[in-house]
Amino acid sequence: MTLSSALLDEAVDQLATLPGIGRRTAMRLALDLMRRDIPSVVRFSEAIRRMREELQRCTVCCNISDGPICAICADPRRDNSVICVVEDIRDVIAIEQTRQFNGKYHVLGGVISPMDNIGPDDLTTGELVDRVADGPVKEVIMALRATVEGDTTTFYLAKRLAAHPVSLSTIARGISVGGDLDQADELTLGRSIADRKPYVRTSER
Amino acid sequence: MTLSSALLDEAVDQLATLPGIGRRTAMRLALDLMRRDIPSVVRFSEAIRRMREELQRCTVCCNISDGPICAICADPRRDNSVICVVEDIRDVIAIEQTRQFNGKYHVLGGVISPMDNIGPDDLTTGELVDRVADGPVKEVIMALRATVEGDTTTFYLAKRLAAHPVSLSTIARGISVGGDLDQADELTLGRSIADRKPYVRTSER
Repeated sequence: MTLSSALLDEAVDQLATLPGIGRRTAMRLALDLMRRDIPSVVRFSEAIRRMREELQRCTVCCNISDGPICAICADPRRDNSVICVVEDIRDVIAIEQTRQFNGKYHVLGGVISPMDNIGPDDLTTGELVDRVADGPVKEVIMALRATVEGDTTTFYLAKRLAAHPVSLSTIARGISVGGDLDQADELTLGRSIADRKPYVRTSER
Repeated sequence: MTLSSALLDEAVDQLATLPGIGRRTAMRLALDLMRRDIPSVVRFSEAIRRMREELQRCTVCCNISDGPICAICADPRRDNSVICVVEDIRDVIAIEQTRQFNGKYHVLGGVISPMDNIGPDDLTTGELVDRVADGPVKEVIMALRATVEGDTTTFYLAKRLAAHPVSLSTIARGISVGGDLDQADELTLGRSIADRKPYVRTSER
């Protein structure tokens, strides 16, 4: 697709570098931006540039942060003795929304994936080991995705952390609350049976 | 969804203004941009800003153009006497790819749509009428989409151009080449029967 305009061509090329955006969609997005007034497109462009140029990595948990220490790590009301290990900020947001966790996080930046050329050193595994070695950490909760890559990463970190006196746990896998059994995949259903919990009668509670 | 980072928040908000991009996708795009090096994100951001700030509208056909006159309008080998009226640059690209048209274009910038508050004055209808009034135009081909809005726009322009000695045509609608009849929608199939053409026997060709 050669256009009469090099400027449009370049913008479409750049938009098409985004994941899941093909050239056809990129063109639609570019034409939408062309219909806006100049200040609004400048705001759009600047927001992306500033995000990349000014965002830092929290020096404690490695999450994306506006300053050197993120709001969660800086919060004195949160429990320093429990660290929940996640892939990226989306997992942090999702767990925060449950209001079930009051510890700290550690953001790995992904999972070990030899296929994608991602090894332990491409992630913040060393930073996690240092945190556990130096700090008051009693428990590390592994909250990585239940894939070969996620499980490999959990296995790798368990080995690295074995020398330290921390208990290690993984989040529960099973049928989602309100979910139908016949809608669940085999692996999840199998795991929900293997990991069954004793039933607690109401009178015993 | 409140994040710990105002910078990330703003970038996600801006990406989510794009058509078809929700907040969840916008977050995925933002995290993808965060993983790139700074110069590549600056290139991304600048391409969008420069497109909007520097692109012009061709003073003849109203298409997007790097200069005051687009490459097609500036091409002396193209036929000045036929104008093909389209909605936007995507239609120009699509028609150019067929290599079946050697005239000029007129880019309306959309179609008349009272529902979306788009009237004739929001489009380049006046510029088209001026071109036909001033120039050597013999035929105007209407190549707008076959919707109520497209047909309304064609109807409106036909009325506006009635005073001028130009022939008006619309592109053919029908079953696509190689298309199955039972896959076509009723309107298209109906139109392909109503607009049937005499069959030319090979010996008569």
